[in-house]
Formats: sequence, C-alpha cells, structure tokens
Amino acid sequence: MNFNMQEAIEVLERTPQTLEYFVSGLSNGWLQCSEGEGTWNVAEVIGHLIEGEKNNWIPRLELIIQEGENKSFPPFDRDKHLKESPQKSIEQKLLEFKTIRRANITKLKTLVKSESHLEMTGLHPEFGTVKLRELLSTWVVHDLTHIAQIVRVMAERYRADVGPWKEYLGILKK
Amino acid sequence: MNFNMQEAIEVLERTPQTLEYFVSGLSNGWLQCSEGEGTWNVAEVIGHLIEGEKNNWIPRLELIIQEGENKSFPPFDRDKHLKESPQKSIEQKLLEFKTIRRANITKLKTLVKSESHLEMTGLHPEFGTVKLRELLSTWVVHDLTHIAQIVRVMAERYRADVGPWKEYLGILKK
Repeated sequence: MNFNMQEAIEVLERTPQTLEYFVSGLSNGWLQCSEGEGTWNVAEVIGHLIEGEKNNWIPRLELIIQEGENKSFPPFDRDKHLKESPQKSIEQKLLEFKTIRRANITKLKTLVKSESHLEMTGLHPEFGTVKLRELLSTWVVHDLTHIAQIVRVMAERYRADVGPWKEYLGILKK
Repeated sequence: MNFNMQEAIEVLERTPQTLEYFVSGLSNGWLQCSEGEGTWNVAEVIGHLIEGEKNNWIPRLELIIQEGENKSFPPFDRDKHLKESPQKSIEQKLLEFKTIRRANITKLKTLVKSESHLEMTGLHPEFGTVKLRELLSTWVVHDLTHIAQIVRVMAERYRADVGPWKEYLGILKK
C-alpha cells in the first residue's frame, strides 16, 4: 500500500488550480467538445467534480467517523450536475470547485488526525465494508481519472486531424 | 477536420505551466513512480516533451517549409531524454520546457501565417507524405497524451489502495 495522507493532500490541493490554469480561457470548440452522445464535455466534468465535493468525499468520511458500519452511504448521483439549472460559466464552476475543495481539505485535516483513523470502516451500498483509507485513496485517483478524461475528450477532437500519427498517440487508442 | 491555428496555440501555450503547477513540489513518491520496468516516471515524461521541442515539431515544420517532400524528416529518438546526464531536477526541466515552448510558439507564428501553409506537405520516414496541418495537430495531441500519461502513472501508484473502488475508476482499467 502506498497511501500517505500528506502525499494525498498534495494532489487534492493541486487539482482545482491545475484545471483552472489549463481550461479557463479556452475557446468554446475545446470546452464544448465531447466523445459523442451521452459523454461529458469539459464543463460537465468540472460540474461532476463539484458534486463529489458536496455529496461524496467529505460526507462519506464523516459518516464513517460518526456511524462506522451502522449506516450505509447514501447513493451518489453521478449525473446530478447535468440537471443543474441555470448553467454556470466555466469560470464560475472552476471558482466553485477551488473554493469547496479548499474548505474540504481543511475539514479532512481536522477529521483525520492519526494513522488509526485510516483503518476505520464504513458501509458502501454496493461494495459492503470499505476502509477510510480506501475512500481517501479513491478521492485522489478520482481527480486523476477526470484530469485524464478532460485531455482525452480534447484529443478526440483532433482524431481525424492528426492523420497517420494516430498510430503513435496512445490517447486516441480505443 | 477541426484544426484551427489559434485554438491549437491555446493548448500548446497552456501545457508547460499546467504541468509546472501540477507537479512541481510533489513528493518523490509521486515523481519517481512509474508503471513498471521500461516505463517513464513524471520527470522522464517532461524530459521527452523537451526533446520534442528541440528535435521534433519546429525542426520538422521548418523542413516542410524549406524542402517540402524533397527530404525526409530525420528520425526522432523517443528515448533520447533517458540518456541525458547529469540528471536535472524536475524544476529545472519544467523551466526548460516552458522556456523552449514559448520560443517555439513564437517561431510557429512567424513560420505559419496563412491557411495555405497548412496544406504544405513533407516526407515522414515511415508514413510518407504528411501535411503541415497534421504535424501541428499531432503536436497538440502529443501534449494531451503525455498529460494523460502523467496522471495515469500517478494513479497506478494507488491501484491497490483504492480497494473495491477500482471498478469505478476508468484510469485503472487496463
């Protein structure tokens, strides 16, 4: 196992500003492209990350600490951000993500103070018993998977444009 | 076809600083992990991006403009950055990438001034005739594929740590 609290926080605290730097100010061509019907564009991925901050990571962490395995996590709606209305601008979303992530890292540091906390367990509606350590590791990898998704969605837009080089570009393999 | 010069530059100019923000200051655990023997760690990916700036994109662009299909591109050594000695720090590499990329974008703007340039052709040692437009599209997607690689390498480090959530994390599917 490689999880380490300080290293996990290093990633969690970098993600919002990294995304802000990478996507704010991009043309609509980049912001509105997707991988086809039923897939998310860049703005929708940021919306999903915000939902996670509100309804997934910290609420589940608190539930583990307060209830242990007595109470199952409420289900997380992966598409909730798509139902939001009115639509916010990408800059508003990035700011919202940055703000709530910062507050959540502060909460995380308050809630998890020792190695022994990491071994606490909760009840996932599908997986059954899960460890607090696994939840926090997943929070980190969830950031990484959605950064990867954003660049993959953007790469898809140039699939035809790269011509024969497609063969060398792993991101276009699927 | 979606390629557009201004939109391509939007990505090219964001990549170095995005990577600088994301990886500088990370613990060695993150910087030195890889996907196993023969795969690159984060610092090696940055080294490869620098090599591309020096010996791939702009030199090939210039060759297309000067020689057309009369002269084949010199082969590009994908592993050259691994032979570099002495090893530079990640901060030095990020600064070098940022500096050379900035200069190359300036060159790009000088060299490619009209839509008609995009249709010029060169000779790839393996693919045969390639268009300048395809080379520039590939430059952009090459950035995206290596950003994706960096986050994928980092995610791999927590493969066991996420426990049952592995199932939901696309970046760990392989």
